[in-house]
Amino acid sequence: MTKPYVIGIDMGGTNTAFGIVDARGNVIASSSIKTRKHSKIEDYIDELHTEISRLIEANDAQDKIQGIGIGAPNANYFTGIIEDGVNLPWPTPIPLADLITEKFGIPTIITNDANAAAIGEMTYGAARGLKDFIMITLGTGVGSGIVINGQMVYGHDGFAGELGHVIMKRNNGRMCGCGRTGCLEAYCSATGVARTAREFLEIRNDPSTLRNIPVDEITSKDVYDAAITGDKIAKDIFEYTGEILGQALADFASFSSPEAFVLFGGLTKAGDLIMKPVKESLDKNILGCYRGKVKLLVSELKESDAAILGASALGWEAK
Amino acid sequence: MTKPYVIGIDMGGTNTAFGIVDARGNVIASSSIKTRKHSKIEDYIDELHTEISRLIEANDAQDKIQGIGIGAPNANYFTGIIEDGVNLPWPTPIPLADLITEKFGIPTIITNDANAAAIGEMTYGAARGLKDFIMITLGTGVGSGIVINGQMVYGHDGFAGELGHVIMKRNNGRMCGCGRTGCLEAYCSATGVARTAREFLEIRNDPSTLRNIPVDEITSKDVYDAAITGDKIAKDIFEYTGEILGQALADFASFSSPEAFVLFGGLTKAGDLIMKPVKESLDKNILGCYRGKVKLLVSELKESDAAILGASALGWEAK
Repeated sequence: MTKPYVIGIDMGGTNTAFGIVDARGNVIASSSIKTRKHSKIEDYIDELHTEISRLIEANDAQDKIQGIGIGAPNANYFTGIIEDGVNLPWPTPIPLADLITEKFGIPTIITNDANAAAIGEMTYGAARGLKDFIMITLGTGVGSGIVINGQMVYGHDGFAGELGHVIMKRNNGRMCGCGRTGCLEAYCSATGVARTAREFLEIRNDPSTLRNIPVDEITSKDVYDAAITGDKIAKDIFEYTGEILGQALADFASFSSPEAFVLFGGLTKAGDLIMKPVKESLDKNILGCYRGKVKLLVSELKESDAAILGASALGWEAK
Repeated sequence: MTKPYVIGIDMGGTNTAFGIVDARGNVIASSSIKTRKHSKIEDYIDELHTEISRLIEANDAQDKIQGIGIGAPNANYFTGIIEDGVNLPWPTPIPLADLITEKFGIPTIITNDANAAAIGEMTYGAARGLKDFIMITLGTGVGSGIVINGQMVYGHDGFAGELGHVIMKRNNGRMCGCGRTGCLEAYCSATGVARTAREFLEIRNDPSTLRNIPVDEITSKDVYDAAITGDKIAKDIFEYTGEILGQALADFASFSSPEAFVLFGGLTKAGDLIMKPVKESLDKNILGCYRGKVKLLVSELKESDAAILGASALGWEAK
């Protein structure tokens, strides 16, 4: 018999958020710990266990947890392992699913954070009822989760959906954290927006309130704050970001012909400042047979809940 | 009970090839007609019916046909319709599946030609046993068929997999038949190779046997013939083509993390002249987590049979 709750854990580079979720997607209780507090993964898992056990007891949910789902960077759905090349304080690979299953005595499934977000959106958010959509997460980096025919695309090795690393500029592209140049992520992440700000302020001479901030400290939030007061350079930064993102989405349509793109993450808070240029660029660049047929949606989940909800949805699959 | 044979029909812009295929992928009998002979689609279907009936009778296969599968340009798997925007002599949309089902009294499924090729390769060719691969067809145009988790990707509307129209050059890209500029197809199709030849001959001054051919008549076959005699410009044309194709494949890996790319069609006959630069460019441009893990395969099906076989494989699904 299916138990009434699942646990969702969103393991970020800074914070690890977790919660108890019911079958309707209500977050019954949630909390978080600092990911980097412990130099050993075992200690981190001990604290996670202590805190989650506390939540479970407080909500009288002992023996009522069907499974645990975790969204984590570079987490491989097939192997349950956090693979190399990730910004975490412990040596990789980390057999996270096994470690958690053993500690909690509850079956656990992991996947990367963008996939978890897509599953959350499909189960509880803007993508409910959609069988073919692409989720793009616009945070510190750019991630993606692809759903085709109602199924998450994991690829043959669990690493499908790295659309943040499709090349948008083949000449003189920006350095990307992946070691290559010109990736979508280098332009359309929060970091990318801040880089665009630095570039625009350097090459342009018109006034901008952004010039009052030390150039290396400008964040995408600063650009947003300036743009809503009408600052021309700030608005142009979002135009530029949106144009590139729209070009990318147009290419992605040629792959899986999705019913919708769902945008998620900090940058979407800029609203029309970013969504309008994305939509215009998508319409302008997309192949004729897709034009006007692909919806452009924004996540309907509270960002704080979305990652927990998405991860938790995996808990229902866990055996 | 399943019947022993299916019919595969490959409807091209010039010829329509068809054959009777058994469950092991043997083409029992095949023939072809001219696609453009009839100004009315009904007359074309009449001739197709006459010729296929002749094959069926000659092989004593009456009442032994399970289904008909058709690969045709812009053919929509979901609706059974050949949609607008295609180079055929009849007005579109054409409800092809219904017209054929009605005429033959046999259930019929249609899909586009590249998808049919991918299904053929998965059922009988180089992709046997692969659950995640991307087929790229390099002919007059560039087509693609994407298989994820053992299933053909059709997208929400039947139009997934137009990878020939992903943008490879965002600035000063070549005009493409789709009305946009810089598409993969404008560079890596047979036509694209001929265009590269014309460009290279114009901007370079070194000698080439290609200069003996009127520049507007150069074909990709001419480039191949020159390259195998060691002609430098001809070899550079394949290098250039392969480099762009490798860049494209590297981006496609970030989508579905396939186990293999399978290349198909005329250009692959150039062998190492094209495959070596494709492989080098793929290795150089691919994201680290995929590097060295994606196979680069060439179709194992005879080109004349492949399209019929691929289309025929759909016949087993028809009900």
